[in-house]
Amino acid sequence: MVIIMNPDATRENIENVVEVIENAGLEAKVMEGTQQKIVGVIGDKTKLGQTPFGAMDGVEKSVEISKSYKLASREFHPKSTVVDVDGVKIGDGNFVVMAGPCAVESREQLFEAADIAKKGGAQMLRGGAYKPRTSPYSFQGLGEEGLKYLAEAKERTGLKIVTEVTEVETVEQVAYYSDLLQIGARNMQNFRLLKEAGRCNKPIMLKRGISATLNEWLNAAEYIMNEGNQNVILCERGIRTYETYTRNTLDLSAVPAVKHLSHLPIVIDPSHGTGKWRMVKPMAFAAVASGCDGLIMEMHPNPAKALSDGAQSLTPENYLSLMDGVKKIHSFLEDEGLLLKTV
Amino acid sequence: MVIIMNPDATRENIENVVEVIENAGLEAKVMEGTQQKIVGVIGDKTKLGQTPFGAMDGVEKSVEISKSYKLASREFHPKSTVVDVDGVKIGDGNFVVMAGPCAVESREQLFEAADIAKKGGAQMLRGGAYKPRTSPYSFQGLGEEGLKYLAEAKERTGLKIVTEVTEVETVEQVAYYSDLLQIGARNMQNFRLLKEAGRCNKPIMLKRGISATLNEWLNAAEYIMNEGNQNVILCERGIRTYETYTRNTLDLSAVPAVKHLSHLPIVIDPSHGTGKWRMVKPMAFAAVASGCDGLIMEMHPNPAKALSDGAQSLTPENYLSLMDGVKKIHSFLEDEGLLLKTV
Amino acid sequence: MVIIMNPDATRENIENVVEVIENAGLEAKVMEGTQQKIVGVIGDKTKLGQTPFGAMDGVEKSVEISKSYKLASREFHPKSTVVDVDGVKIGDGNFVVMAGPCAVESREQLFEAADIAKKGGAQMLRGGAYKPRTSPYSFQGLGEEGLKYLAEAKERTGLKIVTEVTEVETVEQVAYYSDLLQIGARNMQNFRLLKEAGRCNKPIMLKRGISATLNEWLNAAEYIMNEGNQNVILCERGIRTYETYTRNTLDLSAVPAVKHLSHLPIVIDPSHGTGKWRMVKPMAFAAVASGCDGLIMEMHPNPAKALSDGAQSLTPENYLSLMDGVKKIHSFLEDEGLLLKTV
Amino acid sequence: MVIIMNPDATRENIENVVEVIENAGLEAKVMEGTQQKIVGVIGDKTKLGQTPFGAMDGVEKSVEISKSYKLASREFHPKSTVVDVDGVKIGDGNFVVMAGPCAVESREQLFEAADIAKKGGAQMLRGGAYKPRTSPYSFQGLGEEGLKYLAEAKERTGLKIVTEVTEVETVEQVAYYSDLLQIGARNMQNFRLLKEAGRCNKPIMLKRGISATLNEWLNAAEYIMNEGNQNVILCERGIRTYETYTRNTLDLSAVPAVKHLSHLPIVIDPSHGTGKWRMVKPMAFAAVASGCDGLIMEMHPNPAKALSDGAQSLTPENYLSLMDGVKKIHSFLEDEGLLLKTV
Repeated sequence: MVIIMNPDATRENIENVVEVIENAGLEAKVMEGTQQKIVGVIGDKTKLGQTPFGAMDGVEKSVEISKSYKLASREFHPKSTVVDVDGVKIGDGNFVVMAGPCAVESREQLFEAADIAKKGGAQMLRGGAYKPRTSPYSFQGLGEEGLKYLAEAKERTGLKIVTEVTEVETVEQVAYYSDLLQIGARNMQNFRLLKEAGRCNKPIMLKRGISATLNEWLNAAEYIMNEGNQNVILCERGIRTYETYTRNTLDLSAVPAVKHLSHLPIVIDPSHGTGKWRMVKPMAFAAVASGCDGLIMEMHPNPAKALSDGAQSLTPENYLSLMDGVKKIHSFLEDEGLLLKTV
Repeated sequence: MVIIMNPDATRENIENVVEVIENAGLEAKVMEGTQQKIVGVIGDKTKLGQTPFGAMDGVEKSVEISKSYKLASREFHPKSTVVDVDGVKIGDGNFVVMAGPCAVESREQLFEAADIAKKGGAQMLRGGAYKPRTSPYSFQGLGEEGLKYLAEAKERTGLKIVTEVTEVETVEQVAYYSDLLQIGARNMQNFRLLKEAGRCNKPIMLKRGISATLNEWLNAAEYIMNEGNQNVILCERGIRTYETYTRNTLDLSAVPAVKHLSHLPIVIDPSHGTGKWRMVKPMAFAAVASGCDGLIMEMHPNPAKALSDGAQSLTPENYLSLMDGVKKIHSFLEDEGLLLKTV
Repeated sequence: MVIIMNPDATRENIENVVEVIENAGLEAKVMEGTQQKIVGVIGDKTKLGQTPFGAMDGVEKSVEISKSYKLASREFHPKSTVVDVDGVKIGDGNFVVMAGPCAVESREQLFEAADIAKKGGAQMLRGGAYKPRTSPYSFQGLGEEGLKYLAEAKERTGLKIVTEVTEVETVEQVAYYSDLLQIGARNMQNFRLLKEAGRCNKPIMLKRGISATLNEWLNAAEYIMNEGNQNVILCERGIRTYETYTRNTLDLSAVPAVKHLSHLPIVIDPSHGTGKWRMVKPMAFAAVASGCDGLIMEMHPNPAKALSDGAQSLTPENYLSLMDGVKKIHSFLEDEGLLLKTV
Repeated sequence: MVIIMNPDATRENIENVVEVIENAGLEAKVMEGTQQKIVGVIGDKTKLGQTPFGAMDGVEKSVEISKSYKLASREFHPKSTVVDVDGVKIGDGNFVVMAGPCAVESREQLFEAADIAKKGGAQMLRGGAYKPRTSPYSFQGLGEEGLKYLAEAKERTGLKIVTEVTEVETVEQVAYYSDLLQIGARNMQNFRLLKEAGRCNKPIMLKRGISATLNEWLNAAEYIMNEGNQNVILCERGIRTYETYTRNTLDLSAVPAVKHLSHLPIVIDPSHGTGKWRMVKPMAFAAVASGCDGLIMEMHPNPAKALSDGAQSLTPENYLSLMDGVKKIHSFLEDEGLLLKTV
């Protein structure tokens, strides 16, 4: 951490800052120039806790330099993590696709979707049983019934199941029926839910919050990992910006950023990332080339009748065409040694 | 709702859209120009559910025109709501101040803060017992012990208590010890928590999400109200923008916007809104003049020793000076008939 | 400046960074902890030019700590600047209002607007002769003819004239007819125009760019001042955020921020800041209470017939009512010693 | 356009709106439901000019539905445009790379960069002679001398020249020495410069503004095209968001969006888009797979000594490695029929 003093900070102001640092058992280094005085801190900064230097006399501001997450950091864990989802490995160079409807609407709809997902080559089936919706009047999901259909679809197709958990009370239930628990963008800083997920024995897919920084996202992963669950997959799903043509702005640069900062695998959601089915294929291709570990996409047997997110869902035909391209591109990159692993 | 067709949409495409609308028992009106074809929908749009027009052939996009929230809308409830917090009225022209430390750190710290809050003229005491923190290694609050100190501080000073609830499991507990439950920015779309708050018999203060639109915020209030609890106070606390000089960008225009769109009272949090104690006073004065119903502010007996948010906490001295100004400005505006109620 | 090294940076990497700093005649201070190695730089950092430390081996990133603007900085010029616009002083505690139509549409329209502006107590008349418009097919202004009407309106009412200059070629012409040249948000980083404005003998009002940081804004002012023109007034007019209910998000915290960082006066534009006439009055009141030096607002004799920005223009009636409040509030704050000057 | 009336709008209010529309020679269609009244407009909306419906009594807001740009729109010009830059075609499926230093610093530096660019397979050389810089104290470029070096580098290598023009006065000069004129992000709404570029006989590369919407960007292209120059290439270079880890957030979804909305070619700038050399390669690969028409990248013989943008510049070694991958990926996509042209 570096503390920047006001131009008119007194000697006493600086000494007070140094004292606080030294009292925490750390070393302070003062740098004084004609324009500026700064105090650097060396050592384990967690000892400083949340010391509010900004509230001390003579301080202009403090700048955090070290990361507050450790378990999620590549610095402390250089080797890339491979997450095992009931036999499907994510993070080892393999490319994993999760596909299926936004919401489980009925057994028939889900089975139809599962068959198509399987046919296209996905390894996992997605489908929401608990749906977080902006309006209380929107379809909220089938709940446990939906989870049962998902488990049946797994038996039928062998596809592993990923589904969202939105509440602490249902973590156990969702973990019972599924293979990978998704924590959605709106819950990325629902810390109680993160902790519960950290105590669960299934892997977790943590979506980036709607306007979360990379730092906040990796700290959210830290909450899960700090409870003992190291099997965390990150999922970039677009961030909120001023642009309204797309539902969100898909930040593909999160892929190399996460690969640099963390050892956790990262997958891309081009469906939420764009909000428009027309844009899913080009963004899926781009995601593969960026070096991510997989994709999660919305596909519906009949998007025009979907109970949620129809506008961003692929038709079976478009899905199959997309998958054909994704597989070819990934194989090519692998064969040519062009897959970017760490950056 | 208005559905905009592609320039090359066929007659059949338009008829399909019209059919979906009419099947839902609504009236469709087609407008065709040389450049453009659009279909308007008349009637109760909730009947359309989430029909994904964007997934239908020939459709460019659909534009929502009506609000999805009803209970929170001024349109359906023209009279301004007055929320009663154990005798303190918010929303009736009275100006309510909630002040206190970010976190309850100890009985002594809280009692000292409460005495100062009272002296300055606040009607309510704030203080967090459960703290949502970006990093799992930051101080997480004293929990129930903190709530007990808050209840004791109320006995001592008569100040009403507002404190944050972060989990479904503790709603009852927090409601037991406090007078107004705060739902924080990170939980604004924690729908399960919103519903639980809606079943609670205490009023709720709902903070705007870190990057929530006004529409999402009012829909979040709708979740609470839809469960039966109409006593909702909105709190603007700054939104996330590209500017990093301030912690958030305080959006004071939310005051007239909310007064126009909704009947619920709105208070301003200039502490989180700016992140810098130096800016709290000018923004508090501005907030009063904007016509809001109150303020919530962080004040600490000794900000430089605060366990959280010290940099944005007022010292007792600055707090008392601020309160003196706030009271004068509000009285003046009231006397001169310059308080802006509905807009 | 502080240079943060990678965890695996070598001794040689650090020595290379130190060498670059010392070669520039500056002092480098290395701080090494177990987690982290950083290099601090002391002295006049402009000597380092744009040294791209981020491109050197072993460097994670560099963090700028000192400001790159000097002339606009309060640090180097503690006394607040008072700008004299043909006798009207801005920045000395006086409150200055500039009102008038978005665009000069005709002599009659402008004269009518000028008479109303004057009646309400504004000291300056605004009106665009050269209009920057998103679409080339929108009304682009009357050009020199508009400037002449403005000059006539000044003769008629005594109001000083503020109008936008959009091109280097017309700086001289606009300066001839007006008293204060506005550089609009879209041109805030039109550096050639800034330099030309810096060579002009009239004061300049520099609007904040649509998504400009405070740092970029003050650097833009520096461009003008560096050419010799110290008479710069800053104007906050709303920034671009994800919220679409308002045209922009008015950032009133720019007032205390600018008062802290700079000695230049700052005025607020609640018309562009909100885009809705209904919100102009509450935001104008809030602006006064925030401690700004003045307002610039759009008012039109008949907004429903305006050729541009009608939706955010005040009617004469609303303008007069607003002005009555603004004057009362400012006088009250002044009398009570509640005007916030430096922060 | 659709005009949404207030819930309490009177019959007279609606009639007034209809009258304005009909007076402009257009047809109005009123839709009235129990909750809502809206008025649709049919016909050539440019006849309405900028009619400020938002200022009329009883109007809540108006929603624009049709695009204001025509010449840049695919709707009116379905065939993709191919721009010819002195023999190099952009937009016909060919993949074009522009590489070189941020700024021309010396003849030697530029020639060295040109040789490497050529060796890697770029068809064009980039290099700034006029540099727009945030601070007036940063290196501002060599001016005409830099342009001469660029022209010499073309003679030497055969690479076509792209360089930025920042001022109306130098358009002719820059057009004389170069093959493609770049209008930078900060000047995207410098309308005077756009018009001048529109009168120039060289093609123009228009960068997206720092926080420009797709709609504003295409309207900026319209300014150029409306003056007669149809040879416009769009360049996405990252947009400003709340995330600070990257310099900008590269919006690759602009590729399919532009291909859908417009017939103009689009290239990607992963250097400015990320601000970090480490991220340029993965984003370049992703860009190719997204279906864009080319890349523009910063490469410097010695980034650690660059006078600007060193931290995002590729070393020769990294550049050559990147180019090898880009060429392979593009060829593969082409051979497999996976290049996405229109979306």
